[in-house]
Amino acid sequence: MIGIFAEKVICNSLVVLTDGCVVVEDEKIVDVGKKSELVKNYKFDDVLEGKIAMPGLIDAHMHSFQTPTKGKTCDKSLIKWLEEYIWPWEASLDKEKARACAELSYIEMVKSGTTCFSDFTSIKHTDEAFKFAEKLGVRANIGKTMMDENSPENLTETTKSSLKETERLIKKWHGKGILRYIITPRFDISCSDDLFYSAASLAKKYKVRIQTHAEENQEEVAAEQMYSSRNAIKTLETLQLMDENLILVHCIWLSESSKRKIIENNVNVVHCPGSNMMLASGVSKMPLEMNVALGSDVGAYYNFSMFEQMRLASLLQRVSNRNVGIIDHKKCFEMATVNGAKCLGLQDIGTIEKGKKADIVLLSNDYSLIPLNDSVAQVVYSCGREAVDSVVINGKIIMKNKKILTVNENKIMAHIRETV
Amino acid sequence: MIGIFAEKVICNSLVVLTDGCVVVEDEKIVDVGKKSELVKNYKFDDVLEGKIAMPGLIDAHMHSFQTPTKGKTCDKSLIKWLEEYIWPWEASLDKEKARACAELSYIEMVKSGTTCFSDFTSIKHTDEAFKFAEKLGVRANIGKTMMDENSPENLTETTKSSLKETERLIKKWHGKGILRYIITPRFDISCSDDLFYSAASLAKKYKVRIQTHAEENQEEVAAEQMYSSRNAIKTLETLQLMDENLILVHCIWLSESSKRKIIENNVNVVHCPGSNMMLASGVSKMPLEMNVALGSDVGAYYNFSMFEQMRLASLLQRVSNRNVGIIDHKKCFEMATVNGAKCLGLQDIGTIEKGKKADIVLLSNDYSLIPLNDSVAQVVYSCGREAVDSVVINGKIIMKNKKILTVNENKIMAHIRETV
Repeated sequence: MIGIFAEKVICNSLVVLTDGCVVVEDEKIVDVGKKSELVKNYKFDDVLEGKIAMPGLIDAHMHSFQTPTKGKTCDKSLIKWLEEYIWPWEASLDKEKARACAELSYIEMVKSGTTCFSDFTSIKHTDEAFKFAEKLGVRANIGKTMMDENSPENLTETTKSSLKETERLIKKWHGKGILRYIITPRFDISCSDDLFYSAASLAKKYKVRIQTHAEENQEEVAAEQMYSSRNAIKTLETLQLMDENLILVHCIWLSESSKRKIIENNVNVVHCPGSNMMLASGVSKMPLEMNVALGSDVGAYYNFSMFEQMRLASLLQRVSNRNVGIIDHKKCFEMATVNGAKCLGLQDIGTIEKGKKADIVLLSNDYSLIPLNDSVAQVVYSCGREAVDSVVINGKIIMKNKKILTVNENKIMAHIRETV
Repeated sequence: MIGIFAEKVICNSLVVLTDGCVVVEDEKIVDVGKKSELVKNYKFDDVLEGKIAMPGLIDAHMHSFQTPTKGKTCDKSLIKWLEEYIWPWEASLDKEKARACAELSYIEMVKSGTTCFSDFTSIKHTDEAFKFAEKLGVRANIGKTMMDENSPENLTETTKSSLKETERLIKKWHGKGILRYIITPRFDISCSDDLFYSAASLAKKYKVRIQTHAEENQEEVAAEQMYSSRNAIKTLETLQLMDENLILVHCIWLSESSKRKIIENNVNVVHCPGSNMMLASGVSKMPLEMNVALGSDVGAYYNFSMFEQMRLASLLQRVSNRNVGIIDHKKCFEMATVNGAKCLGLQDIGTIEKGKKADIVLLSNDYSLIPLNDSVAQVVYSCGREAVDSVVINGKIIMKNKKILTVNENKIMAHIRETV
């Protein structure tokens, strides 16, 4: 049994306890309340103490395989960035590189307070990502990219091979511990209708989520028109894929009718403000009736801090719409916690409450949190990953006092340096 | 003599050395080059080792006295933010509070890699800021706010008292060690012509810089019109203040003619993208022929990371103007280093080169810097203050391996907690 003591416990965006205690047994939160009372009722095997305890952050969209390109690609917008940097790098990926990409990404995420994520990997070597996620102990949703048309020759799969590899990975990994598979067609342009349709059948057969990029960039929207006189939302609608099982990433250039369809059908949207700024893609104006989660979208962005994505989500809307109230800190905090959980179909995480799975981040007594006037506002606007001290995932301490406990970091660092 | 060894030494935005060494003696950089060569020529009393050595960051605009309001004020734009939060807090400041504000701000800055700053303090107790800056060992430019009209009653000075206190502070502190005074009329609205004019005479008499807020917010611009049918730039021009000694902060709503005057007269501009986003003030479109420095503008922003301001400066321009090239990472890095130095009249800092004062930041082997594809791009877009390991100011080690050496942090933390 673990006792987590904190000056403030952020249970969710609206409920913050003072001098709180979270009691964790096996994988679950079994009690939450005043420290002074709970210490009488429980005997703890391990204790973590800090300034703020909060739900683990959820990165609903990132690409581990792109991480080693950071710093190289800052002069391009979407299509050129794909053509000049990402596709050539992706074509060069071997097993060792794929493993090093997962190591580099997942450790940085844990150190940044991210306990759950959705990794859009490359078309190949996705087992490596699962293997390392299992070893590290993170709540990973991982899917191999599917692409069978309008793609670089050395990255184009046959429809059949793409589906076969996807089904093999689902059977091998989905539901193994806290790992989950997520079906991952790249984007409308690079997927045939047949691939999309069969992917949807697989999603239904195995009850797994399906994720794809949509309406990120005006050039992309124009290319869709050129290839098929359609847009992503229409395609997905025709294929009867528009439901709560679907995750659409970006959605900057949605028409009003597409927005309505997303809301009516409870489709999930992932907003990636950092990436949208980095690639000059545009400012998303998604209505907040949608379930909007947040994503770092590394490698289009260059770091995994979800503190930064919460901050950017709010700041960008304030200045673009000249209104301070549009997305406030509470809303941003929800995007990176409960909304992310809902998006990924994981309703048992995202808040700190009795009965939920214990995915918890403990922040230290950083200067940015002194004085602590408003815990949620200061998590969103003041502190960053420098304040992340300890991380619990599914009831297990993965990082304590900034030290990762589940893997040997020196060995992994050496592997990364040799490989990428 | 100190030897600073780093995998990469960023001398300036264009020159990066591999396996470099910086040699520091007394307050100066006496040599820079290959580690393998320089270790033969010098005998070091102390050695610092890290991933990247770079010039200390310069925060050209912040308000220490506003720091304790962070987290409280996120629902307001400029004028309401001043009226509802900042002015009442400012009126309540006593000596102990002013001291605690400086402690809280300056330590967070050093931990964030900021070695030099310009602090726009309140109208009173500015000695406290100087005293703590001296003790900590930071390169501080500090000025008391001047305001003698259109201001809250309990914050309005007489023209005479404002000038007298300013002159007393200049005589006491300007040029003492690495401390400098900076004359600080708040903004056009709250300063009489007489105050501005006499402030300018003081600036000339003592050869000190003069800084003021200008053209930040459309409401402010409208209020200026209402009070005096003028704008800040016209006022400053009439008073013959438009020269390289002047620092204008914000400058979002400049007319084309004001922009021209700023360029022609070599006036310095401080861009505060975080604050401009936070207060929904607008997107600055300053031409890059101006000398543009960067500021955190805490408390309008809630943390002191200049890594964050460099990132925001670039990202905001990319997405607002839909162009990735407008302010690239090299330009942002210059804004936070050499341009800040020029702005503050400190041409002997801002780069790592022989003969310059040694203001140097050493970054650790953070995951965000692995692999290190482009040092400047990754300092701007990937890493943050979590990577700041050691800080040297004017040749003295102020922080080593994340530990502040010049003051007792536990004592100071206790004082801050008791006071604000």
